[in-house]
Amino acid sequence: MFKVNDNYCKLPATYLFTEIARRVNTFQQENPDAKIIRMGIGDVTRPIIPASIDALHNAVDDQADSSTFHGYGPEQGYDFLRSRIAECDYAKRGIHVDINEIFVSDGAKSDTGNIGDILSIDNIVAVTDPVYPVYVDTNVMAGRAGDFDGQHWSNIVYIPCTAENSFIPSLPERRPDIIYLCYPNNPTGTTLTRDQLKVWVDYARANGSLILFDSAYEAYIREENVPHSIYEIEGAREVAIEFRSFSKTAGFTGLRCGYVVVPKELKGVDANGNDVYLNPPLNRRQTTKFNGASYLVQRGAAAIYTSRGQEQIKATIDYYMKNASMLLDGLKSIGIEAFGGVNAPYVWLKTPSGLSSWEFFDKLLRDAKVVGTPGVGFGPSGEGYFRLTAFSSHEATSEAVERITALKI
Amino acid sequence: MFKVNDNYCKLPATYLFTEIARRVNTFQQENPDAKIIRMGIGDVTRPIIPASIDALHNAVDDQADSSTFHGYGPEQGYDFLRSRIAECDYAKRGIHVDINEIFVSDGAKSDTGNIGDILSIDNIVAVTDPVYPVYVDTNVMAGRAGDFDGQHWSNIVYIPCTAENSFIPSLPERRPDIIYLCYPNNPTGTTLTRDQLKVWVDYARANGSLILFDSAYEAYIREENVPHSIYEIEGAREVAIEFRSFSKTAGFTGLRCGYVVVPKELKGVDANGNDVYLNPPLNRRQTTKFNGASYLVQRGAAAIYTSRGQEQIKATIDYYMKNASMLLDGLKSIGIEAFGGVNAPYVWLKTPSGLSSWEFFDKLLRDAKVVGTPGVGFGPSGEGYFRLTAFSSHEATSEAVERITALKI
Repeated sequence: MFKVNDNYCKLPATYLFTEIARRVNTFQQENPDAKIIRMGIGDVTRPIIPASIDALHNAVDDQADSSTFHGYGPEQGYDFLRSRIAECDYAKRGIHVDINEIFVSDGAKSDTGNIGDILSIDNIVAVTDPVYPVYVDTNVMAGRAGDFDGQHWSNIVYIPCTAENSFIPSLPERRPDIIYLCYPNNPTGTTLTRDQLKVWVDYARANGSLILFDSAYEAYIREENVPHSIYEIEGAREVAIEFRSFSKTAGFTGLRCGYVVVPKELKGVDANGNDVYLNPPLNRRQTTKFNGASYLVQRGAAAIYTSRGQEQIKATIDYYMKNASMLLDGLKSIGIEAFGGVNAPYVWLKTPSGLSSWEFFDKLLRDAKVVGTPGVGFGPSGEGYFRLTAFSSHEATSEAVERITALKI
Repeated sequence: MFKVNDNYCKLPATYLFTEIARRVNTFQQENPDAKIIRMGIGDVTRPIIPASIDALHNAVDDQADSSTFHGYGPEQGYDFLRSRIAECDYAKRGIHVDINEIFVSDGAKSDTGNIGDILSIDNIVAVTDPVYPVYVDTNVMAGRAGDFDGQHWSNIVYIPCTAENSFIPSLPERRPDIIYLCYPNNPTGTTLTRDQLKVWVDYARANGSLILFDSAYEAYIREENVPHSIYEIEGAREVAIEFRSFSKTAGFTGLRCGYVVVPKELKGVDANGNDVYLNPPLNRRQTTKFNGASYLVQRGAAAIYTSRGQEQIKATIDYYMKNASMLLDGLKSIGIEAFGGVNAPYVWLKTPSGLSSWEFFDKLLRDAKVVGTPGVGFGPSGEGYFRLTAFSSHEATSEAVERITALKI
């Protein structure tokens, strides 16, 4: 009989957002008139900016005529988009990224999962805790995680980030081969300064570790000393892959576009200890297992780099960040400790009165009819925390703040 | 030092289509006035049908307004598309496929590569030879192929399909766990009848093998006794996964959409020999490593199932099949043996005068300025064969036929 990859059987059956949906549906059925405000899943709500809408319509028209029709595109992405990325996301910040180091994809979720294809299953993986569940689950599926004790996977190194250490991860005691870092952070909304990120780049250089740096939320950075790219740190090109997404930058959660940067200098070793550069295998993976992001969507993405596009996405991000600020102010006004929300669209709060994450979830749903995400769903160090997102409308956010501040807690 | 997946290092450096591009570029540089006709890569050239264009424009407009905006969609695809697939591609042919068995993706190349994620690396893989290179290369990357001797991978079972056996694969001597079948076939353009396909379904049932059935070209089938889906064969739901694509059906090579069907009954075993159903792990893979196909593209795909859409895609396919017929007639008129082209957009010819595949490639490029694909690029049994595609315009195809028939061969 053919054999299934039974690493899949190790994964706990319930996925965080499935359990949230289940509880919300039950509550809604029991309280059909309740007007629930959803601030759980990190999905955007504002429409695509006019600059991209125009580009999308034009791209659709291209496909309607054989003289402008675009069939298979380059698997790595069109140069019209890669050149804009290299120029606007990097060169303008003084960073050199060659367009052949950029791989355009259908989104950062695919990229952060697929990058594992080119890495040996023998590597030891480290994650900050709490963490975006995809990093852990994709390593479980690949066979890198070991066994689960209900909280931790035996082969994964967890690096706690809590209020006690101001959400600054300490260097691990056990040396990892691969380190996932996401800044601005999902779920905590916290950031590292350049100096704090440099500690990790230096560690990776000294220890032969690879940093997988997810900067999907960089467009939300407001403070000067917070790096937008890990390549702002000296030496990072030798140790880091960077993931970017148009989902939160430009509302492309439904359109699907992201990219990954793999510098030419970046190398690991094969089973015999010989150097292997990472850019060629990723290129081979993409040309073999992927056929490029949709032409339409790449045109839509390129339009955000026009000056009109830049103004428009800034307005959308300002809109969400006003929500973040309302949330932070509201929570603090009733004495709840809250973090993030300054350089990120997430607010991470300490649950009051010693409630567990799920107890607070149930209380907030029942008493305020507001849905958030229990921190423990992101890892054991998330217990006692809770995530709210800034992606709703002003009206919904304002209403949610009113309801939360009216709670007796 | 972190370790790279060194299965990637085993892959031969040159990819078929890269080598073709290199030779064509060299020829064009040496002969700047030569008007080269490209019939190599299987990319379409006709524009997207008006029914889909209208749907795409409407979907773009949806994204421009917060009341109709679509963010993250279901990772498995929207029901508006899955229900059309279940109804039009299956129920209308008397086949029951539940919508929860359908996973919409960004294309069959991704799907045929990614399916390996949920299968153990210990499985023995069989391919027909010649074969679409992605099946073999993705298994090399995953570590299932063994070592390469310049023609064959040691752990892959090759099933020759040549003029000698009328391109009907014989059952293998060594039992494979996984069998890739692509019908109508790329590259040969040949098909199996229902009875011939039943032999394989019966074999898989008797031997505990999994069939990965790629029917990306089913829309080109003209003959009554050629199955459009493997699920037309009794018992196939217990042993087969089916891959479909909108690329060749509706010209979506640049838009990116396909789907895979995993029936609920289909099961393999884990390392301990316990049954494991395949539908749940694929669902887990897609929800963890993928965020759904673009909303726009799914709307465009759904439009092909309207009666207007069906008429329009039929016209496009008829257009290409007229080219196939011109190619077949032309080749036969000068005594070249040619296959396929009746239920598929590919014509597979036996190279004349005992020329090797690459010798014929060079001759055709030099003397007729026509680019095709050397059969040997698809596997050792492709040596002495050559592929031409029907995806050009009538004008280019007719011109190519004129030039080829004028050759002294």
